[in-house]
Amino acid sequence: MAKKIRLGILGGGGDSLIGVLHRVASHINDNYEIVGAVFNPDHEANLAFAKEIDIPTNRIYKDFDTLVEEEMKLPESERMQVCSIQTPNFLHFPMAKKLLENGFHVICEKPMTTTYEEARILQEAHQKAGTVFAVTHTYTGYPMVRQMREMIKAGALGKIHKVDARYYQGWINPIIHDKDKRSSVWRLDPKKAGISSCMGDIGVHAFNMIEYTTGLQVKSLLCDFNYLYEDNQMDVDGTVLIRMGDYVKGVIRGSQVATGEENGLAISIYGEKAGFRWEQEKPNFLYRLSDTEPVQIYKPGHAYNSDFSLDGTKLPPGHPEGIFDAMANIYLGAARAIRGEDQNDGAFPTMLDGVRGLNFIEATVASHKGGNVWVDMD
Amino acid sequence: MAKKIRLGILGGGGDSLIGVLHRVASHINDNYEIVGAVFNPDHEANLAFAKEIDIPTNRIYKDFDTLVEEEMKLPESERMQVCSIQTPNFLHFPMAKKLLENGFHVICEKPMTTTYEEARILQEAHQKAGTVFAVTHTYTGYPMVRQMREMIKAGALGKIHKVDARYYQGWINPIIHDKDKRSSVWRLDPKKAGISSCMGDIGVHAFNMIEYTTGLQVKSLLCDFNYLYEDNQMDVDGTVLIRMGDYVKGVIRGSQVATGEENGLAISIYGEKAGFRWEQEKPNFLYRLSDTEPVQIYKPGHAYNSDFSLDGTKLPPGHPEGIFDAMANIYLGAARAIRGEDQNDGAFPTMLDGVRGLNFIEATVASHKGGNVWVDMD
Amino acid sequence: MAKKIRLGILGGGGDSLIGVLHRVASHINDNYEIVGAVFNPDHEANLAFAKEIDIPTNRIYKDFDTLVEEEMKLPESERMQVCSIQTPNFLHFPMAKKLLENGFHVICEKPMTTTYEEARILQEAHQKAGTVFAVTHTYTGYPMVRQMREMIKAGALGKIHKVDARYYQGWINPIIHDKDKRSSVWRLDPKKAGISSCMGDIGVHAFNMIEYTTGLQVKSLLCDFNYLYEDNQMDVDGTVLIRMGDYVKGVIRGSQVATGEENGLAISIYGEKAGFRWEQEKPNFLYRLSDTEPVQIYKPGHAYNSDFSLDGTKLPPGHPEGIFDAMANIYLGAARAIRGEDQNDGAFPTMLDGVRGLNFIEATVASHKGGNVWVDMD
Amino acid sequence: MAKKIRLGILGGGGDSLIGVLHRVASHINDNYEIVGAVFNPDHEANLAFAKEIDIPTNRIYKDFDTLVEEEMKLPESERMQVCSIQTPNFLHFPMAKKLLENGFHVICEKPMTTTYEEARILQEAHQKAGTVFAVTHTYTGYPMVRQMREMIKAGALGKIHKVDARYYQGWINPIIHDKDKRSSVWRLDPKKAGISSCMGDIGVHAFNMIEYTTGLQVKSLLCDFNYLYEDNQMDVDGTVLIRMGDYVKGVIRGSQVATGEENGLAISIYGEKAGFRWEQEKPNFLYRLSDTEPVQIYKPGHAYNSDFSLDGTKLPPGHPEGIFDAMANIYLGAARAIRGEDQNDGAFPTMLDGVRGLNFIEATVASHKGGNVWVDMD
Repeated sequence: MAKKIRLGILGGGGDSLIGVLHRVASHINDNYEIVGAVFNPDHEANLAFAKEIDIPTNRIYKDFDTLVEEEMKLPESERMQVCSIQTPNFLHFPMAKKLLENGFHVICEKPMTTTYEEARILQEAHQKAGTVFAVTHTYTGYPMVRQMREMIKAGALGKIHKVDARYYQGWINPIIHDKDKRSSVWRLDPKKAGISSCMGDIGVHAFNMIEYTTGLQVKSLLCDFNYLYEDNQMDVDGTVLIRMGDYVKGVIRGSQVATGEENGLAISIYGEKAGFRWEQEKPNFLYRLSDTEPVQIYKPGHAYNSDFSLDGTKLPPGHPEGIFDAMANIYLGAARAIRGEDQNDGAFPTMLDGVRGLNFIEATVASHKGGNVWVDMD
Repeated sequence: MAKKIRLGILGGGGDSLIGVLHRVASHINDNYEIVGAVFNPDHEANLAFAKEIDIPTNRIYKDFDTLVEEEMKLPESERMQVCSIQTPNFLHFPMAKKLLENGFHVICEKPMTTTYEEARILQEAHQKAGTVFAVTHTYTGYPMVRQMREMIKAGALGKIHKVDARYYQGWINPIIHDKDKRSSVWRLDPKKAGISSCMGDIGVHAFNMIEYTTGLQVKSLLCDFNYLYEDNQMDVDGTVLIRMGDYVKGVIRGSQVATGEENGLAISIYGEKAGFRWEQEKPNFLYRLSDTEPVQIYKPGHAYNSDFSLDGTKLPPGHPEGIFDAMANIYLGAARAIRGEDQNDGAFPTMLDGVRGLNFIEATVASHKGGNVWVDMD
Repeated sequence: MAKKIRLGILGGGGDSLIGVLHRVASHINDNYEIVGAVFNPDHEANLAFAKEIDIPTNRIYKDFDTLVEEEMKLPESERMQVCSIQTPNFLHFPMAKKLLENGFHVICEKPMTTTYEEARILQEAHQKAGTVFAVTHTYTGYPMVRQMREMIKAGALGKIHKVDARYYQGWINPIIHDKDKRSSVWRLDPKKAGISSCMGDIGVHAFNMIEYTTGLQVKSLLCDFNYLYEDNQMDVDGTVLIRMGDYVKGVIRGSQVATGEENGLAISIYGEKAGFRWEQEKPNFLYRLSDTEPVQIYKPGHAYNSDFSLDGTKLPPGHPEGIFDAMANIYLGAARAIRGEDQNDGAFPTMLDGVRGLNFIEATVASHKGGNVWVDMD
Repeated sequence: MAKKIRLGILGGGGDSLIGVLHRVASHINDNYEIVGAVFNPDHEANLAFAKEIDIPTNRIYKDFDTLVEEEMKLPESERMQVCSIQTPNFLHFPMAKKLLENGFHVICEKPMTTTYEEARILQEAHQKAGTVFAVTHTYTGYPMVRQMREMIKAGALGKIHKVDARYYQGWINPIIHDKDKRSSVWRLDPKKAGISSCMGDIGVHAFNMIEYTTGLQVKSLLCDFNYLYEDNQMDVDGTVLIRMGDYVKGVIRGSQVATGEENGLAISIYGEKAGFRWEQEKPNFLYRLSDTEPVQIYKPGHAYNSDFSLDGTKLPPGHPEGIFDAMANIYLGAARAIRGEDQNDGAFPTMLDGVRGLNFIEATVASHKGGNVWVDMD
C-alpha cells in the first residue's frame, strides 16, 4: 500500500505552462497529492487558482515564508513532504535553501539557481539536509534517452570519441529584431534574467543530456556567442567546443534565433563501435548507427529495451507517450527516492546536475567574454 | 470556480493498461476527482488496488449493482456524476444501460457494445436519459486530427473523392501461428470475444477516424477477411472497400498480423484541392499535400491552427504531447458537456460514433461471410 | 574486352521524358551505343533530334519498317542487336513482334501490349525467337528492391501472409475535374488509351513489384474502380483485393486522383517472421520490421547487402542513386543477357512480367465491370 | 544543333568510383563525347580500360604530357576542348595549370590543389587563359540546393544570422583505431595526403555549400581538431566556428569518425524571416522553416521551383534523381559555358570556389595549430 506523497507547489498558477506540466506529471503515477501551495504572489489570484483547480484552500498560503512556518507547525505525518519550485528563476535558490534547511524534499525547476556560487551553497545545504533533491531536466525522463544511457553504460558504443548536441529554437526572433522589444523584455535584461539567455535557458539542457547519456563529464570548453545586435547584451545563440577527456571532443550548439525551429533538442554520440542519434521532437525513436550493420530504430515498450527504459513506459509499443510522461518519470523517480526505495541512479537529475549546469553556464560566458578562450570546468 | 466532477471507475484495476490511460487522462486538466469505483470483480483485489493508488475505500463497492444502489442513496450533490466503463467488452452494454437509466453520465470504452442490436438499444436508452455519453475513440483527441477535421470542414480539400485508412499491428503473430494458443486464447474465441477480432478491435478505429475527420458517412462496404488458418474462425486481417457517396470511395485496411507494425493507424484523405496524411505513431505531424504547392507540415500549438486544435494542446510547439494527452482531451470534452458548456461538436466521440462502429463491425462480417458482397450501412 | 552493344531507339525523341530515361540508362554502365533510331514519326523532327543529341544520321530511319528492312541488310556484326521501344503504347505490340520475328533483342516500355491477347501472342513469338526480351518495370532496378527480393527468397520473412502495395499519384486532377478536358484528353479515351487508365498505367507496377519481391503470384482478384464522374469511362482510382495462395491475401491500391501524391509507389510485405516496407520516393531506405527486434534500415552499398543488390550500386553508402540508376540496372541486366552471361534471375523484368501485367489489367476491369466479383488470373 | 563537346579524361580508370561518376555525368545530357584519355599511369591498364568501356584507343595516351603534346598537334576542330581531372590530388595542380596554359577548358575534382599557394597560382593562370574552369563540388548540382540558393538570393530568409553545416562520415574508424593501419595508410600521412584529412576531404564541401547557398563569405574562423590518437597527425574530426559578417555566425562540423554516418552532409541556414534545412542523403526534400507558418517541403520538378532548379531536373515530381544527376548538372553548366551560352551564375562551382576551399582548409589547420585562435580568410 502506497500512501500518496504530500506535495506543495510554489509558483505554477494561472496560465503557467510549467505549472501544468508539473501538476499533470505529479498525478500520472498516482504518487502525489497536492496538499498546499503558493501558486501566485498575489494572494487573491493564489486562492482563485486553487479554487479553479479545486484544491482545498486551507493550506494555500499567502507567501512562501508563511508556508514553511505553518507547515512546520503540523505534525510530520500531515506536513508537506516535498515542495516543487516552479517560480521565476531568481527565487529558486532562496526557496530551495530554506526548504532544505527545514528538512523538506525538493523538486526544483532548472536553472537550479542563478549563479554557480549559489549552486554550490545549495549543494552544501543539501548535503547537510540529506533529503531528496531533484532538478527537472525533463528530457532525461524520456524512455529512449534512458535506453541510450543504459546501452552506453553497457558498452554499446565502446570508447566514445565524439559528441554533438543541439538545442535550436526560433521563438526570440520577434523580440530580438525589434529594437524596442529587445531593450525592454526581461529575458534580455541581464539584471533580471541572469548572465545568459540561450545557454542558461536551453544550452544547459543540451549540456545535461550529454553528461547524462554518456556518463562522461565536460572538462573544458570554448564558446562563441552571437548577440545579433550591438545594443543587445544577452546571448541568443552560441556554439561551444567541448572536451570530455583525452581525444573525446564535441560541440554544443544553442540558438533562440534558429528561425522555425521549435524545441529542437537533439544529440548524437559516436564511439568506436556504434553511434546514437535522438531528437526530442520525435522522442520515441532512438537511432543506433553502425559502420557495418543496418541502422536500428529502438522504440519504447519492447522487451528488447532495458528495465530502466521500460519502467518509464506505461503503454505497449506504438502508443506515443510525450513530454508529460517524461516529466512524470522524473516525479516517479523522486517519489521512490522519497520513500527510500532502490532504483536506477538515473531516475531523476540530482543536485549534481544542477551544480554542473550552473558551472557550464558561467563557463560559457567566461569563455566568450575572455575572447573565446578555453575555460576549465570544476 | 470549477468544482471537480465526481467520477466513478468500473474496471481498470491492477495492471490494466486502459485503467492507467483513463485515470491519467481524467487528472490532466484538473476536472475530475475519482470518488468511487469497482476496479475488480474480486473485492479484495478491488480494495487493495484502491489503497495502492491511495483512494478512500468507503465508496469502493463490491460490485457494479451495489455501486449504483449505494450511489443513488447519496444526495445528488455528493453522488457520482459520471462513470467510466473500462471493463471487458461484454459488460459495456449492461453497465452503460443501467447507468443511463439511473441518470448518470457515461464515459465508455470501445467497442461500446458487443452487437449492433445492443448499440441501438443503448442509443434509445441514451435518448431517454439525456445525459452525456462519450465513447473513447482516443485517437480523435489528438490536436492534429482535430486540425484536419476543422480544415476539411472549412473546405481545405474541396470535394473529397478518395479515403484510405490503415490500422496495422503485428501483436497476434505469436498466438495465431501456434495451434494451441490460437485455439485457446479468448481473443480468438467468438463466444468470448464477439464476432470480430481485427475489425472489432482496431478496424473500427480506422472507420471512426474517417467519419470523424471527413464529416462523411460510409454508405456501403465490401470486406474480405484473412483467418490465416483453417481452424481459426476470427478475422485477424481484413480489407474493406468503402463507398461514402457518389464517386467517393476508399479503403480501410486492418491487420493484427502485419508483422513488426506496432500501433499503425494512419489515414489519408484526398479531395479536389488538396490531401491530408496523418499517422498515429507520429501524431504531431499533419501533412497537407497539394498538386501545385510545397507539402506543408502542420504541428500543434501554432497560432495558424484552429481554436479547436489549440484547445487540445497544453504546451508550446515542439513539446510532444502523446496519447495520454489525446485521451485527456476527450475527458475534457466530456467534462465541459457534463457542465453544460458550449464547445466544438467534435470534442468527444458520441453515442452515434458507438452505434456506427457496431454497425460497421457487423457489416464487415456480413460482407465477408456473404462471399465478399456489398453490404449497406444504416 | 566488352564491345558496346548496338542499340536502336524507337520513339523517345523531342521532349520525351521516357526517352531521356532510357538514353541515360543505356549509357550508365558503358554497355550500349546508340547506332540508329526512329525517334519521331515526323522524319524532319526525327533527324533534327538526332542532330540535337549529336548521333550520326545515316541510320536514322524514316519509319519503323524501314529500320527493320535496312538493318536486316547489314551484316550481323554491324546490325543493331537490340531495339528499345519507347513509342505510344499501341505500337509496342506490332513493333516488338516484328523485331522478335527478325531476331532482334527487345527492350520494351510497359505496358508491353494493349491487350492480354496481344501479350500472349508476343509471348509465343518470343519463345520462337529465343532472343532477350526485357520489359522496363523500372522500379525493380532499385538496389533495395533487389535486396528485399533476395532476403525474402532466403527466408527472412518466413511464410508470407499479407501483402499491401500502393501507387498513388495526383496528376490527373486538373484534367478529370474539368469536363472539357476529361472528355477530350487521349488518356481518358478508351479508344486511344486502352481499357484502363489507373491500373494500366501505374497499378500494374504495384502488381509487378509484389510478384517480383515475393516470388508469389496473384491467383485471383476483386476490384472496385472510381471513375469520379458519370461521363468518364476510365478508372482513375481503384482498389484491388488479391489472393496469392491459401490465406495469403493483400491489397493493391492505385490512384491518379490522390491529390498531392507525386509518384507514390510503396509496398509492405508481412510474413511470419518479419515484415518489409519500401517507398519509391525514398528508394535507398528499406525497412525491416520485427515484432521483437528494433526496426532495421537497410541502405545500399553496404557489405551486409546481397551480391545482387550490391551489383546495382555504383557508389559507397550515402551517395544517393536514383531512378536513372534503377533503369540503368535493368539495361545492365539486359546487356549481360544479350552477351549470354550468367546472372541473377531478377536482373530484368521479362516477357512473363509483361504477360502477367496485361492479365492483371484485364482482370481488374473484368472484376469491376462484373460487379466487383472475384476473377481468376491465369 | 549541338555538336558534342570533345572531352578528355585524366585518371578515373579501373575501379575508380570517381571515374564512374564523371563518365556517367558527362553522358547524361548528351553534351560530351570522350575522345581521349589517360585513365591510368600504367599504359597497359590504360589501354585495357579504354577497351573495357569500348572507347577508340587511338587517343588513349601513355601519359599526360603526351596527351597535351599530341592534342595540340590536332586542328582545333578535332582537339579535345575540355579535360576532366580525376587523378590523385597532388596531380590536380600541375595538370590543370598546363591545360590552362595550352588553352583547354578544365573540369577539376576537388580539392583543386593541395595548397592555397598553388590555388592562387592556378587562379592567375586561369585569368590569363580565359577558358572555362569548373571544380566538381558535386553537391551544388542538386536541384534543391539550387532552389535554396535562388530563394535566399530572392530574399526568402531576410538577413541571415545563423549558419550550421555538418559533414559526418564514419568510414575511417576501422583504420584509425588500428595502430598499424593508421600509421601506414596514405590518407593519414601528411606527406601524401596534404595537411588535412577531414577538412580537406569533406569539411571543405560543407564550407563550399554554405558560401554557395548563402552568397556570403566566411570572414574568419576558429577550429579545433580531434586526432583521436597521439601518434596520429591528421585531423579525422573537427569543429569550426565561423563568422560571415557582423553578427552572422555559424559552425561547420566535420568528422570521419562519426560512427555509422555514411555521407552525412547537411546544412541549416536561418534568417530573420525563415530557415532552410537540407540533407544530402535525402536530396530531394528541402525544408523551409518558419516561426509562424507550417513547415514547407519543397521537392524537385514542381512549377513552384525556380527556373534554375527546374533546369536541373529531368523527370516529373516523385522520380528521385540522385548524385549522378547532380554531377550531370555541373557538367551541363560547364558545357553551356564552353559553348558560350548564358546561364545562371551558380551553374557550376568555379575557380573562386576552388581557391576559397584551399584558403579554408589552410585556415582551419592554422587555427588549430595556433591553439584554437581566430584566423582571417582572405
